[in-house]
Amino acid sequence: MSAGRFITFEGPEGSGKSTHIQELESFLAQQGIRSIRTREPGGTKLGERIRELLQHDAAGESPVARAEVMLFLASRAQLVENVIRPALAEGVWVLADRFDDSTFAYQGYGRGFPIQELRLADTFATGGLVPDLTFLLDVPLSVMRERLSERDTQDRFEREGMEFHRKIRDGFLQLAAESPDRMVVVDSSRAREVVRAEIEEVVRTRFLLQSGAAT
Amino acid sequence: MSAGRFITFEGPEGSGKSTHIQELESFLAQQGIRSIRTREPGGTKLGERIRELLQHDAAGESPVARAEVMLFLASRAQLVENVIRPALAEGVWVLADRFDDSTFAYQGYGRGFPIQELRLADTFATGGLVPDLTFLLDVPLSVMRERLSERDTQDRFEREGMEFHRKIRDGFLQLAAESPDRMVVVDSSRAREVVRAEIEEVVRTRFLLQSGAAT
Repeated sequence: MSAGRFITFEGPEGSGKSTHIQELESFLAQQGIRSIRTREPGGTKLGERIRELLQHDAAGESPVARAEVMLFLASRAQLVENVIRPALAEGVWVLADRFDDSTFAYQGYGRGFPIQELRLADTFATGGLVPDLTFLLDVPLSVMRERLSERDTQDRFEREGMEFHRKIRDGFLQLAAESPDRMVVVDSSRAREVVRAEIEEVVRTRFLLQSGAAT
Repeated sequence: MSAGRFITFEGPEGSGKSTHIQELESFLAQQGIRSIRTREPGGTKLGERIRELLQHDAAGESPVARAEVMLFLASRAQLVENVIRPALAEGVWVLADRFDDSTFAYQGYGRGFPIQELRLADTFATGGLVPDLTFLLDVPLSVMRERLSERDTQDRFEREGMEFHRKIRDGFLQLAAESPDRMVVVDSSRAREVVRAEIEEVVRTRFLLQSGAAT
């Protein structure tokens, strides 16, 4: 039995991460490969509690920016040790909806914390685990806005401000440029089927899988 | 109005930290100096929620060691930004029951994480805040055991194991040796009144205060 592969999906909200994780799960299942999905923050009992503290002001006060970073990393540390590493060790592939590139994009490029400081803290939290492959689902800002408006009565995109979203997108692209072997940029503004095929092709080539059976 | 002073109390459980923080509060009050006490983890609404996750397995699962570190740092980040820095800026002194030396002693010397990695993550969490003065309340292991046995029907000291407590104590002493200007080692196995007088003398000299009024 060989070790599982660790594939992360990154990109802004509305870029199609959960859709394409589902598609890839189906493809892997056709290949007889077991996989699990994870999400951040969350994915463990502790992580779900942390998610509440981060997202719903469950504590009665918002985390300050530095506490927010540490809470994300606490959730990730738990997920890596209790879920991701055991799965990989059993030969199960892990498809992660966000991992550390999101920390660098949002808290680094978005909020302005030095990337190098975030990297050191993140490496501590993950114990040095690095994805085998990362898909950056990239969409132009105009497409992102349109997709988010459809989801939500309030326009979350506008609420955060265009400039913030531009920083995040540019940050993700910068991260991809620095890790060309690990990160693959996929233009996710195209038709879902086209994007799906491209992701499958990358996975097949990278990990030497057979062509997918017709469903 | 001058800025407040930031004084931390470190040492193992049973070393008299809370007693001597109370004593110093009284002394400062006699001098007309306002002070507040903080504790870690906790001290903010978010921090108290984090304390629950750390201490009572409120999540239904224990944090793994790396998640534990990050949760401590999240609590500290919130405390520094929402409580400690605002107090100091108003001229209020802050007396902290544990701060970052506890992280280095327990998670570093105790659990074996590299001190340098912990320092970098801690510096991120605190934004670089360093205490003006730190009292290390040191007691021989035999005294510590005796004091903890009195507090608790179960012998917590034995539960953790003698070797762990020895590592923590040695770690604290090593930290003090590396920061002789900031950290003052106080032999806290002596009579409470003797220890109190020594702490007051150090504070008076260090911060150029008058002798305490008789109470």
